Parts: sequence; structure tokens; C-alpha cells
Amino acid sequence: MNLQALIEDIRQQVLPFYDQGRVADYIPALASVAPHQFGLAICTLDGEHYACGDAATPFSIQSISKAFMLALTLQAEGETLWRHVGKEPSGNPFNSLVQLEYEHGIPRNPFINAGALVVTDRAIRHFGAAHGRLLDWLRAESGAPRLSANEQIAASEREHGDRNAALAHFMKSYGNLDHPVEQVLDQYFHNCSIEMSCSQLARAALFLANHGLSPNTAQQYLSRSQAKQVNAVMLTCGTYDAAGEFAYRVGLPVKSGVGGGLLAVIPGKMSIAAWSPQLDRRGNSVLGLEALDRFTTRTGLSIF
Amino acid sequence: MNLQALIEDIRQQVLPFYDQGRVADYIPALASVAPHQFGLAICTLDGEHYACGDAATPFSIQSISKAFMLALTLQAEGETLWRHVGKEPSGNPFNSLVQLEYEHGIPRNPFINAGALVVTDRAIRHFGAAHGRLLDWLRAESGAPRLSANEQIAASEREHGDRNAALAHFMKSYGNLDHPVEQVLDQYFHNCSIEMSCSQLARAALFLANHGLSPNTAQQYLSRSQAKQVNAVMLTCGTYDAAGEFAYRVGLPVKSGVGGGLLAVIPGKMSIAAWSPQLDRRGNSVLGLEALDRFTTRTGLSIF
Amino acid sequence: MNLQALIEDIRQQVLPFYDQGRVADYIPALASVAPHQFGLAICTLDGEHYACGDAATPFSIQSISKAFMLALTLQAEGETLWRHVGKEPSGNPFNSLVQLEYEHGIPRNPFINAGALVVTDRAIRHFGAAHGRLLDWLRAESGAPRLSANEQIAASEREHGDRNAALAHFMKSYGNLDHPVEQVLDQYFHNCSIEMSCSQLARAALFLANHGLSPNTAQQYLSRSQAKQVNAVMLTCGTYDAAGEFAYRVGLPVKSGVGGGLLAVIPGKMSIAAWSPQLDRRGNSVLGLEALDRFTTRTGLSIF
Amino acid sequence: MNLQALIEDIRQQVLPFYDQGRVADYIPALASVAPHQFGLAICTLDGEHYACGDAATPFSIQSISKAFMLALTLQAEGETLWRHVGKEPSGNPFNSLVQLEYEHGIPRNPFINAGALVVTDRAIRHFGAAHGRLLDWLRAESGAPRLSANEQIAASEREHGDRNAALAHFMKSYGNLDHPVEQVLDQYFHNCSIEMSCSQLARAALFLANHGLSPNTAQQYLSRSQAKQVNAVMLTCGTYDAAGEFAYRVGLPVKSGVGGGLLAVIPGKMSIAAWSPQLDRRGNSVLGLEALDRFTTRTGLSIF
Repeated sequence: MNLQALIEDIRQQVLPFYDQGRVADYIPALASVAPHQFGLAICTLDGEHYACGDAATPFSIQSISKAFMLALTLQAEGETLWRHVGKEPSGNPFNSLVQLEYEHGIPRNPFINAGALVVTDRAIRHFGAAHGRLLDWLRAESGAPRLSANEQIAASEREHGDRNAALAHFMKSYGNLDHPVEQVLDQYFHNCSIEMSCSQLARAALFLANHGLSPNTAQQYLSRSQAKQVNAVMLTCGTYDAAGEFAYRVGLPVKSGVGGGLLAVIPGKMSIAAWSPQLDRRGNSVLGLEALDRFTTRTGLSIF
Repeated sequence: MNLQALIEDIRQQVLPFYDQGRVADYIPALASVAPHQFGLAICTLDGEHYACGDAATPFSIQSISKAFMLALTLQAEGETLWRHVGKEPSGNPFNSLVQLEYEHGIPRNPFINAGALVVTDRAIRHFGAAHGRLLDWLRAESGAPRLSANEQIAASEREHGDRNAALAHFMKSYGNLDHPVEQVLDQYFHNCSIEMSCSQLARAALFLANHGLSPNTAQQYLSRSQAKQVNAVMLTCGTYDAAGEFAYRVGLPVKSGVGGGLLAVIPGKMSIAAWSPQLDRRGNSVLGLEALDRFTTRTGLSIF
Repeated sequence: MNLQALIEDIRQQVLPFYDQGRVADYIPALASVAPHQFGLAICTLDGEHYACGDAATPFSIQSISKAFMLALTLQAEGETLWRHVGKEPSGNPFNSLVQLEYEHGIPRNPFINAGALVVTDRAIRHFGAAHGRLLDWLRAESGAPRLSANEQIAASEREHGDRNAALAHFMKSYGNLDHPVEQVLDQYFHNCSIEMSCSQLARAALFLANHGLSPNTAQQYLSRSQAKQVNAVMLTCGTYDAAGEFAYRVGLPVKSGVGGGLLAVIPGKMSIAAWSPQLDRRGNSVLGLEALDRFTTRTGLSIF
Repeated sequence: MNLQALIEDIRQQVLPFYDQGRVADYIPALASVAPHQFGLAICTLDGEHYACGDAATPFSIQSISKAFMLALTLQAEGETLWRHVGKEPSGNPFNSLVQLEYEHGIPRNPFINAGALVVTDRAIRHFGAAHGRLLDWLRAESGAPRLSANEQIAASEREHGDRNAALAHFMKSYGNLDHPVEQVLDQYFHNCSIEMSCSQLARAALFLANHGLSPNTAQQYLSRSQAKQVNAVMLTCGTYDAAGEFAYRVGLPVKSGVGGGLLAVIPGKMSIAAWSPQLDRRGNSVLGLEALDRFTTRTGLSIF
């Protein structure tokens, strides 16, 4: 199969889906992104790279950062991380605070906001500057030494961050946050505001497709079992309330972000990043989902 | 009926209930209160005052401050206050954040913590220093010009205040808080840490028994209708999750606090304050409830 | 005060509220009631009776039957009834099943549907034919020996009764229902379909205003304490999700029904029944609430 | 790799886990199963069969029947089935009724009880005797023409079935159940009480590993896309509240039952059935989970 031709073809098929979703508008810096953009990039374990459309355009990775942060923190802390955060789907749209209250401050999984805040808190314990550690790591793995956070977006997120502040204070009231709320939020928002392109994202995620070993740097970041854990959590919890729909249509571990990015992993084979800023009502990229759906349908490369 | 003899007798009847509850221990300053104390004080509209036991001992009024703060803010703002806070019972023990999420940041009533924070926020709008206004008012009405907040308790509450900070940030995320979270919390915790005796409390609450007109200062603080509103909210929401039990056993508007105080109103007749620091599992004073139950049973002065 | 003139005047004031609500339409037999009807009746403890408008027209009392059923069952069973049903406000619009699940099959209070089913189940235990007992009692107290249930409405309710069947099976799964679900539902729906006029209702409720003693039959149905209990539960739980609004505006114990009836009690003084079939969004009679609000405001006869 | 040797070895490794769980005891017929039993069977797409321990002993398949019922109904109805039942994880232990209420009678997925009842209701629409159809199908696919339901267990489930009756009535009240509650429950309980051995189960599930085409009967039951759907739903929703844990530890689509069975699928390769009656607190077989975890860890045959 000619993957380059395939992704070009898929691109043509999904462009008609423009304007079926809406660009995230909760902060001005995200709302101003040009809506009609679409990129798709693939990195295979045997070293090939395919890209089309706007695959080289940097965008705000937002919650996709949670997958990398989880991997780094899991590497540093090991299994005890799971005492502070669960790994079950959260299952309801109004999850954040409701579920957190029922479950005494232990977030359901590392990909809901509450869980990502806890992971960030644990990362601070291990790395001090958790954000700096993540940035260094992403620069090395993506081969893009000038990757950085967008300070304007980070500041804007912070300014509109009362909901996350509520989550953090709430968990702190249950004793499930070690560091000051301000510090955790600052690191967290900086992680979310990192800007990367599809090609950079796909490359950085190769270790997840390769059982924890990075083909880029030859580092074994995660054990085989830990890489399986991260992929499993991506599949069951990586796309907000649409995990079932993604499992059903795409059939791959995927992590999404409100910047319009989608990062997918085909264990043993490749990593895929798609991006298009318009989101469906559940916060996932419309064209991105359409593209991944087509990709696994046409290649048969679903895990199911 | 000889009320002085009656309350002395009731005191004897409830003393055996010592140690059936526990002093609030979530902050050290409250936990250190001597547990075996009980006071009861009554002020009638015809100017009589009755007191027994530790009725002259100051204690932390805690949530009882919410009733006074509500009255002052209702006086200043009028009916529009109810756009920011509801007046229905909250109905479930894990209410605070869960219900707030379902209802988009509008607290169910002014006596759950979220609601009291909103009332404080509105009070800041009207008075600037909401706490100062409340303190001045309480000093005037109770005839105790040296009433003050306990700074140690206020600081300790603040230090353990992550849950309230979560509530405040959460409401701010819904646009239902105008002032900075820190400012609102500071005013709120200072209100809660005011120290008053039963006798002072009963005297300060006389206006609620007198349709809004204070017999102490001849000021008409609330309209007849507004006084009815405050009393109604006290009856349906004033005692945490035990509003039904209080209505059923005591049959009066009551506001309680975790300092062990209970403030009750008999419209058209009198105000009553009871205090004993040991609390039942719902956070209400064990001896206080027993005493009020006996008082309304023996006098027939329930509103039902 | 001339009560007859007052209620006539109030009637004129509330007629303009026609068509601000909607007649209950979940079953055809209720939906076909002529919407522009309003009745108001008062019975005082000193034997006076006042009525205006459609006060003599029978209507479906629906949930008002729950107040009478509670009184009869409380008389028969005493305090142990409260082991099977609580007496706290339920506090949320989606209460029925949610809250029941959290609280392991013990309904929050006797006036939500689940609670009324439990009370009916207990009544069957004491009376066998619970509905027959209620009917006999209402006939005697209202002085209307031909009162009866509307079989067509009972059958229609039963046909549309899946939600109540769900509640009953759910409680049975928790062991909080002794009799077969079908039997309990049958009795319950027959109680709801009893037809009475405002004048009959007000008369039947006099014992609640008179501390348990019926002036009609000189029977002491409830102890003074039990009458207080029923009134307290009416105030805190009697009007669906609008208990706070009723306490605040009307300031009396009230039980409402989706037939458009409202039954209010002024302890020590009188009972009041209002009826108009159009309901607000919470299921309470629009004109009925307006009328009771005006009545207590103009007479000052609120309990607060 | 010698799979026969491997599963024998795994069996030795998991036997020490006896008595870390408890046999289901909500009905007598299940409670009386001898606890110390363990079976494991594998069928590969290239026609091999491996078995060890009690792999030939029939047990009550319980909720495993839901996976087969889903496949048959999806085949008959196609995509419109998903209008009646969702495919997202339910995410909370008290899901059934709570979530159903929030989501207006559409169950979250086909594997929670509410969802399985809806699937059964749809199956009745297509097959009439849904249970008979399932039984015929299982007999053909497993090569065991005498498979049957255990009538004693079906009757016992029915007798203790108030919770399921509540669910069914509740959905009917939302219009999401076409057939009479009694009929749906009867079919459902009969499906749950079917008895099969590990070897029979593994064989019957081969079509799910083979993209919808049964190697046993050469029938294409499901399209490739539909087979993917069923496997995806098994992975995200197949093991009660432990979907995350199973994804994380086992990394395969799995459906469990309270009879102690676990059915797993490795797409493109094989099907696996494990059984041991003692359950963990989430209702999944303790030894079964340990065995599947070891199997995927040692073979690397996880999908992640």
C-alpha cells in the first residue's frame, strides 16, 4: 500500500467536512486560529515518514501533552502513580467535579483535567520544573530543538482557569495534591500551550508504538508493560466522552486536544498525528476523526 | 409559664447528652474548645431576657453568621439577590460541588457554603468591607461593642480552606462571583470566626422575630416580606442536611454552626440561642437540638 | 377581616394569571379538564366556612392524597414508619431514582413518589385495603359520603405507570417493599384518582390545623407531635421542587397535586384549599400559588 | 511458542489465587458452584484448540451472553441499533439507574444490564423468540447441539430480578422498550442462564477474532466493521467497572460474567475463554483475570 498516496486521498475526502465543527473559543488565542487547516503525518517504526496538508504547521497541542506527561511521570514514579490517579473511563460529561467528589479526590484517569493536574503534581515532585522536563524531552524526541510553549496562550488559559483552579483546590482538600495550586496550574497550562506540528507529534510518539523504546534516541523510556498501560489508557480515556466512538470507528489508542490535534498509535507499527482546528461537540477534531476513521478502515490497521 | 424555670429545667434534662457528639476538629482552634458546655438564652419581643448555663460564654458563631449576612445583603440588594443564589433545600449530603455543577454555578440556597460565598461576594459589592459591616451591625444589635472575629480561627480556616476555594473558583468559572476569590474567602472566613455568646446572639436576632424591625435599635432592617423570606430559608435550609429533622422536631426557623451554636426564631414572639460544642454526625449541636426540641414541645411554641 | 370578601377579591386578582401554566397532559383524563377554573375554600377551627369560584367542583386530588395517607399510616404505625421513609427534602428535580440509589432504597420523604409508594405499602400492612380505608376516612371527614376514585383516571395512570413501577421494583430490590408491586401500585393509583372539591378538601384537613384532633368527628387522629410532623413535612417537602419558593412566598405547610389542587394548613387557625388546573413548570397550580401568596400576605397569617 | 505448555503453566501459576475472591451468591443456584475450579481454552484461526483444567465443565455464562446477543442483533438490525443503546463506557459503579435517568432512558452501552435489556427487546422484534435464536446459534457455532439454559437458574434470577424489572420499566417509561417488560425479562434471564464450557465458548467466539466470518460454519455473521464494533465495545465496556484495568493488564476485548467466565478475543488470531467461579469485588473472575494477564504478558499478544 502506498501510504503517501493514501493520506493524500484521505485528505481530499475529508476536506468537505470543513465547517461541520467549531474552533475552540474559550480563550481568544485559540479562537483566532484559521479554521480551514488540515494536516496528517505518519511515522513508521521502520523509519518512514509521510505527511500531507498542513502537517508542518505548529498548533497548540493542549491535552495531547497529557499523554507525554503521563509517560514521563510513569517512568519516574512507576506503579505508585496509580495510587493518585485511576485508569478507568470517567463516563460522564459532567464528570470532573461530580465524580471527583464521589471518589474522594482521586481522579478517574490521567486524561480528564483533574487527573492531568495530579500527574503534573507528581511530575513536579520528580522533576521540579515539570514543564521544562517535558519540553526538553519533546525537543529531543521530535528533533525540533526550538519547540516552546506559547506564553500568550498559557497566560490566557491561566486567566480563564477558574475551573481548573477549582479542581486543584478540591483535590488538595482531599490531600491528593502536594504542591501549591498556583504552581501546579502554572506547569499544567504551560504544558497545554506547547506548539507542535503533526510531523513533530508523530515522531515524538514513536516510543508508544515501539513498546516504550524510542527509535529516535534509542532510549527505553517505558517498559513494555508501561507502554501498554499508556496505550490502553489512551484508548479507553483519551478522547473525552467519545472514547467509545473512537474505539468503534478508529479502533486505535488516541489522545485528542482542543487545539484540534489527534495523536494515534498503532502498536508495533506506527504513530499518526492529525490536525484540524474545528471541533465536534465533544471537543474532538472533526476532520481528524474522519481521517483516522478512513485510515484504519482502508488499511485494516485497527487493533480490533 | 415561667420561662426561666423552664430553661433551667431543660438544661438539667439535656446535660446527660454530653459525649453523644463530637467537637468539630477540622481546625485546631475549634477542636480545643472544652466540650462540656451548654448555654441557652431567650429574648422576647416584650423585652424580657432569660439565660442559663454558659449563655454568656462567647463561642465561634461559624455558619450562624450566614443568617445575618443574608439579612444585611438582602436589605442592600433586594430581590435581585435571588438571581445569584437560590432558596430551595439542597437535599443531599454531597451537595456542594455536585449540585453546583448541575445547576451551572448558582448555589441552591444562601446557607450552603457556596451560597454563603455568593452572598459575601454580593455584600462586598454593596459594602466594600462586608465583614466590617457585619461586625458593626452585630455590635450595635447585640449591645456588645467589643465583639470581634477571632483572627487565629480565621487564619486557620483559611489554611484549611481548599474546599471553599474550590467552590469559589468553580462559581467564578460560571461567572457567578464578581470579586477575587481571595477577597471573598477572606471576608467569609472572618465572618465565620466572629465570637458571640448565646445572649448576644439571641438579642441580635430579635429583628427576625419582629418582622424585620429591631426592638434594640428601632431600625426596620427588612420589610415584613423579607423577614419572612429569611425565616423561611432558615427553616428549609438552615441546618445542613437535617432541615427535615429540625422542622419535625423543633418546628422553628433555625440556623446552626459547627461551633455548636443554634439560633432559632419564633416569629412574633422571641428569639432563642442555644450552644454546646459537641456535634451530631450532620454537624448540629447535640444538646442544642435536644434543648430546642424540649422547648417547643413543652411550650407548644412551634410554628406547626 | 372579612374573609369572604377577601377571597372574592383575591379571586379577581388571580384570574388574569390564566394561561400562564399548562394543564397536566401525561394522561388523557387529566388533559381534558377545562383549564379556566379556579376555586378557593377555607375552614376555620371555630367552624366557619368560606368558599368562592369553583370551590364546589370536584377535581382529581392526585398527590394531595399523600398527605392524608401519611397521616393515616402514621396513626397506625407510629414512629417506626420513619425507618422506611425519610423526612428530608429531596432537593433535586431528577431525584426519584438517582437519590433512591444513593440511599439504598429508602425514599427521602413521603411526598416524592417513591416515598408515597412505601407509605402505601405500609398502609396495606395495617389496613389491607389501604385505598378503601383512605376513602372511608375522607368521606367521614369531608362529610361527603359519595366521594370516590375515578376508575378511568386510575386505569390511565396505571397504564402510564412505568416510572412508578420502576420505583416500586427498585425499592423492592432493596427490601423496602413488603407487598407485590402490582398491589402497591393499584392502591396508590386509586388514591391519586380520588376526586374532591376545595370545600371538601379544606374540611377534611382541619385536623392538621387542630393538632391532630378533628373538629368534624371529634376524633384525635394524631398526637400533637405527629400533627406537627405532618405539617413540617408538608412545608419542607410538599410542593415538589418548589418547597423553598412556597415557604418563602406562602409561608405555610402546603401539599400540591398535578390535578391543580393545593392544600394549606395554618396551625391553630384554619385549613385552605385552592384549585386551578393550569400548572407551572414545577407542577404546582399557577393560580393556586398566586392566591395563597396573596392570602398570607394580606392576612399576615404566615407561620414565619 | 507451545501454547498448550504455556496454558498449563499459567494454570499452575494462578491456582494459588483460589479464595481471594467470592462466588456470586445473589441467587442460590450460583452460590452452590464448587469454588475451586479453573478452566482455560483457546481456539486459533488456523484451527488449533488448546484446553486445560476444567475447560470442559459447563458453567453459567451469564453476561457473556450479552456479547453474542449483541452480535446477533447487530447483524439483524444494523446501525440503527445504536439509536436505542449507546457505546460509551458507563464509568460509574452506580451507573444503571442514575445514568439512565440523566440520559433519558438510552443505556450507555449494550453490556450494562439496561443496555442488554434493550438489545434483547430489539432482538425480540427481529427474531420473536430471541432466546431460542441465540441458543440455536450457540449450538451451531460451538458444535454442541445440546447446549441449553438452566431453567432453575433462569427462574431464580427472575425471582430476584426486581432491579432488572426496575430498569426495564424505567426504560419503558422513556419509550425505549417495545415489548412487555415480562417478556423482555424472561428472554434476558434465559440468555444469562445458558451453560457452556470454556472450550465451547472459545469456539463460538471465533467469528469475532476473524472479522465476522465464522471458521466453524463459514457464515459471515458480521461485516468487518461490525466485528470491530463488537470488539471495541467489549474492550471499553465488557468488564463492568474494570474496563480500564482489563485494558491495562490484559489489553484485549473481554466480556465477563458473574458465573466466573471471561471471554477474550485477539483479532486476527484467536479466541480465549477462562473460567473460575470466585469473583473480585467488581464481579470479574479472580483467576480468570490473572490467567489472561499472564497470557498476554508472556505471549506479547496484547492489542496495545
